[in-house]
Amino acid sequence: MAKRIGEATIELSGKAGISQSVGIAGSKELAGPLGQYFDIAFKDDKLGQETWEKAESTLQTTAVKTLLKKAELMEGDIDVIFAGDLLNQCISSTFGLRELGIPLYGQYGACSTMAQTIAVASVFVESGAANRAAAVTSSHFCSAERQFRLPIEYGGQRTPTAQWTVTGAGAALIETDSQIKVKHLTTGRIVDLSVKDATNMGAAMAPAAADTIFRYLRDTGTTAFDYDLILTGDLGKIGSELLCQLLQRQGIEIGFNHQDCGCLIYDIEGQDVHAGGSGCGCCGSVFCSYIMQRLQRRELNHILFIATGALMSPTSSQQGESIPGIAHLLHITAE
Amino acid sequence: MAKRIGEATIELSGKAGISQSVGIAGSKELAGPLGQYFDIAFKDDKLGQETWEKAESTLQTTAVKTLLKKAELMEGDIDVIFAGDLLNQCISSTFGLRELGIPLYGQYGACSTMAQTIAVASVFVESGAANRAAAVTSSHFCSAERQFRLPIEYGGQRTPTAQWTVTGAGAALIETDSQIKVKHLTTGRIVDLSVKDATNMGAAMAPAAADTIFRYLRDTGTTAFDYDLILTGDLGKIGSELLCQLLQRQGIEIGFNHQDCGCLIYDIEGQDVHAGGSGCGCCGSVFCSYIMQRLQRRELNHILFIATGALMSPTSSQQGESIPGIAHLLHITAE
Repeated sequence: MAKRIGEATIELSGKAGISQSVGIAGSKELAGPLGQYFDIAFKDDKLGQETWEKAESTLQTTAVKTLLKKAELMEGDIDVIFAGDLLNQCISSTFGLRELGIPLYGQYGACSTMAQTIAVASVFVESGAANRAAAVTSSHFCSAERQFRLPIEYGGQRTPTAQWTVTGAGAALIETDSQIKVKHLTTGRIVDLSVKDATNMGAAMAPAAADTIFRYLRDTGTTAFDYDLILTGDLGKIGSELLCQLLQRQGIEIGFNHQDCGCLIYDIEGQDVHAGGSGCGCCGSVFCSYIMQRLQRRELNHILFIATGALMSPTSSQQGESIPGIAHLLHITAE
Repeated sequence: MAKRIGEATIELSGKAGISQSVGIAGSKELAGPLGQYFDIAFKDDKLGQETWEKAESTLQTTAVKTLLKKAELMEGDIDVIFAGDLLNQCISSTFGLRELGIPLYGQYGACSTMAQTIAVASVFVESGAANRAAAVTSSHFCSAERQFRLPIEYGGQRTPTAQWTVTGAGAALIETDSQIKVKHLTTGRIVDLSVKDATNMGAAMAPAAADTIFRYLRDTGTTAFDYDLILTGDLGKIGSELLCQLLQRQGIEIGFNHQDCGCLIYDIEGQDVHAGGSGCGCCGSVFCSYIMQRLQRRELNHILFIATGALMSPTSSQQGESIPGIAHLLHITAE
């Protein structure tokens, strides 16, 4: 049974764990510092498809098929998939997972989706509602650019605060009897400090990350010193600095063991990605490859993984709305 | 603890139930056969807001605030909300629930969202991960028309197979010690029989409903005679007929106790809604008002509630894709 501790944190019994995972990437990510860790990297960013959206769907198909292969499972062995992405009506997930015939609950947490899907899948396994569940997400630079900003053919200039949407996907298998345990969850709540600049997502999401980390540490009575790594999803360079500042104001120091997937995945200066990586596929691919591999090798034993999302749409921004942020936290241990 | 039975069905222990619910509607729904059952109906479909999207957000805000009032609870008494809608990036949920400060996992199941949110919330309560959870969804005729089809100002003609998106919302409170129990869940899988007509959603979704009902009845060894009502979400007139035909081919008769929220909510001939109602708010508002009231009065004791969703987007349709359907089932009892 799960247990609620403090105001906002869920303590799982240790039943649910991540037994296998897959990180998929595109060409720019392959050329970055983590290139060697991805299970599969596509040099053709269209993945042989006609459109960017179909290419992104193929990232999810590939992620789940590779996950099944690594775990030596068939589609019918997975009880339920939790999947989501950034595209309108989550079509990367729908069309990417359509052929698999696995029961599906679509999730929408914007770039927080990797932590959200693992969290919900873990609760399903904890309760006995699923024996095996998969958590999946993706993003694609070109499908995201044309949906949220401008078609890439337009060649629009990017601001220094802009982040580069990762072409990539992550898939994780959640089941019992794994040594990589999901021990605690803190569900994010919407935090909106009225940031309206859609080219500065790090600033919009940092307050939500600070809120969730603060509530988790308070609920568990722990400090950053109790963890080997505090890993955020895609705050990038600017959002990461803001997160550390916001927590410092509350007397919490995390800078010494904080890292951000958006800063890890690219050589920020050398690859011209401005403030770093972003998108569901950013922490999706980084967590499910590089970080999971470090947990499996016991280079990391206790980590906090906090994926952040910006819950706006082009329509809400055009209507003058600010950008609400959210951040979901997982405490993961390697035993 | 939950238990898996058969291939696809989850049996809950009886811990999780729906203790309170709220159905909200617009003016056309108020004028329909169920007008008297809604908790609140707005005569002004803009709800005093500047845009249709903000009006839809206000439907969700109103639904949750009314739910809290009916249950005599404060925002802090709800551990987590599961919410979703049809708009790009689920902005009705985000902006509608932003001010409440309640932890949120966004859900995307298109028009299946009401059953999905109750299902996931029930598993959270079953596991102990939440003591109280809310399940929320909405849709709005005008925000849906302009996003999925044409702006209403264009005055486009509607085909006879088209359905009318309901302006409405539903909110349900899931907790322990309720007499309206969620006993079984069957998670839908994507079913796509290559229907491409975006003005005939009933035909696109009926195969998914048939698949989920078939799997549930097989897993539980029950027949339609074991239930007082088999209630589908928003198949409308055409989809309902197709559902009955598809199940008949498999030797299953449900016509004698099947009803569809899309057929119940409007006077189909008199209100000129062609094939009936649709949208997340269709079964959201009907289930959370009229149906829940009948369960509370014990006019209904055992029902199956199957909400169906069409998981396409305008982009996927423009790219020549067919319309994948999904249907999630709940077995609900009044004890």
